[in-house]
Amino acid sequence: MPLKYAVIGSGAIGAYYGGMLAKGGHDVHFLFHSDYEYVKQNGLKVDSIHGDFSISPINAYKSTSDMPVCDVVLVGLKSTNNHRLKELLPPLLDDNTIVILIQNGLELEADLAKDFPDLNIAGAMAFICSSKIGDGHITHLDQGNINIGSYSCRDENKLQQVCDDFNASGVACKMVDLEPARWKKLLWNIPFNGITVVLNTTTKKILENPDTRQLMLGMMYEVVEAANKVGEDRFRLPRELVASMIAITDNMLPYSPSMKLDYDNKRPLEIEYIYSRPIEKALRAGYKMELAMMLEKQLRFIESTYIKE
Amino acid sequence: MPLKYAVIGSGAIGAYYGGMLAKGGHDVHFLFHSDYEYVKQNGLKVDSIHGDFSISPINAYKSTSDMPVCDVVLVGLKSTNNHRLKELLPPLLDDNTIVILIQNGLELEADLAKDFPDLNIAGAMAFICSSKIGDGHITHLDQGNINIGSYSCRDENKLQQVCDDFNASGVACKMVDLEPARWKKLLWNIPFNGITVVLNTTTKKILENPDTRQLMLGMMYEVVEAANKVGEDRFRLPRELVASMIAITDNMLPYSPSMKLDYDNKRPLEIEYIYSRPIEKALRAGYKMELAMMLEKQLRFIESTYIKE
Repeated sequence: MPLKYAVIGSGAIGAYYGGMLAKGGHDVHFLFHSDYEYVKQNGLKVDSIHGDFSISPINAYKSTSDMPVCDVVLVGLKSTNNHRLKELLPPLLDDNTIVILIQNGLELEADLAKDFPDLNIAGAMAFICSSKIGDGHITHLDQGNINIGSYSCRDENKLQQVCDDFNASGVACKMVDLEPARWKKLLWNIPFNGITVVLNTTTKKILENPDTRQLMLGMMYEVVEAANKVGEDRFRLPRELVASMIAITDNMLPYSPSMKLDYDNKRPLEIEYIYSRPIEKALRAGYKMELAMMLEKQLRFIESTYIKE
Repeated sequence: MPLKYAVIGSGAIGAYYGGMLAKGGHDVHFLFHSDYEYVKQNGLKVDSIHGDFSISPINAYKSTSDMPVCDVVLVGLKSTNNHRLKELLPPLLDDNTIVILIQNGLELEADLAKDFPDLNIAGAMAFICSSKIGDGHITHLDQGNINIGSYSCRDENKLQQVCDDFNASGVACKMVDLEPARWKKLLWNIPFNGITVVLNTTTKKILENPDTRQLMLGMMYEVVEAANKVGEDRFRLPRELVASMIAITDNMLPYSPSMKLDYDNKRPLEIEYIYSRPIEKALRAGYKMELAMMLEKQLRFIESTYIKE
């Protein structure tokens, strides 16, 4: 049985992955916000290093109450908007729907499960440089693979089918163990997202400077220690990951991480799930992430200079 | 015997303290740099909360080779220029001259002693809000006292006489034990100097935000720990100092620390003596100043964006 997909948060992440599935012939329904009217008329345009494409006409909606019940909901919202899921999700769900949070950070799934105790929830880690450059217009600059892990899916076969759909649509996807995968992603996000905001620069300049390069290494080792304290006997991040991630970053184009783009556009920063939750979880496991805590506080200050409660 | 004073680095610090001594009737000789011609003609003007005054005519020089040998040399240079002392000082010195470094940081005196092994060296901690606002024009906004401690003075009586001269000239001065006094000053400088640069803000805004306020407390306790590791049985900073210094800062006018002024004016930052030396000294004593190290690296990055080697 082919799966019916919904995409909530059709921005740089949601529109890319949903767009690839649609291009691959899958039945995908997109929730749009400000660019709904534009997309309804002009479709979705993706400029990708793997070849540009358009989805037109597109199944576009401006409210989930107009959307069909789906087998899979891909959530590409900024996690700062996750409080909206309580109201957005219900029209899309039946007992078997799987909701996949394609987001960064920790405890996203646990928070969702508080509002939806019986929901099939999974998390996904997107490894991609993409951004929205206009109404219904996404640019995809580098990478693009995605890893998916179950949080509370009763039907693992269906989750595997999602993974197969991605692979068949040209998106490299594999199934992973969720919590270590989330920590592994944080290994990069905790140092680089925050520091590019605080120092208002790119990953490339951070790594070219010997002082901030050393700071990134220190912060990455701190995340490894935290993950391994939290992981106990369940999982372990090898310290060698640090050197390989630095090497990958050295070879990336000069790049503004998602939090830097949010900062440049004066949007809320995803501090809660990328910093506060991992810090608190590590603290509960007996490890104090001193450097991450300092960066978290600097980020909260910076956010407060342009976002008033 | 009245003392003959030289002032090297006649900026916000040197010109204020030298100016007060001159106003008090002491024989003071000032080295000026860019504003020599102006000051030679117009004198030195100090707008002070304690009453404005001018020193005109003034003993102004543009080279120390034109200056007389002095009993006391007050150094008000930025510590980033201390490498110049090797060449600037000799014309001013006889065997008994005392050189007093009115600067922030650690190991300033030890570095000077490497170039001048037999020199009488002292350090001074200035508690003052002053800045240079134009050629030969200083504004003094708050506080103004100064504490002096011997590093290698053979004649403690003469140092006491300097202290008496200050007090007689309207500058509250007392003699202190140098190393704990330098650490006590760092207790404020390490958190506030750097963070106002990295977050491009004032002490007031830093303390109004609950996150950065907590960060300041954490950084101050870290300095206390470091000082007490270094101090061993010789000296100890009480943890209660943190709360009292925060209270003082809460009651200060919104204020840009000296490093923030240096940053705003695209001058080199005093990272070496305010951060690197205390960090290294604490490390040698077995204590890692994690937060100070992170701030140090951020500052080195920021400085590298506008000062090229």
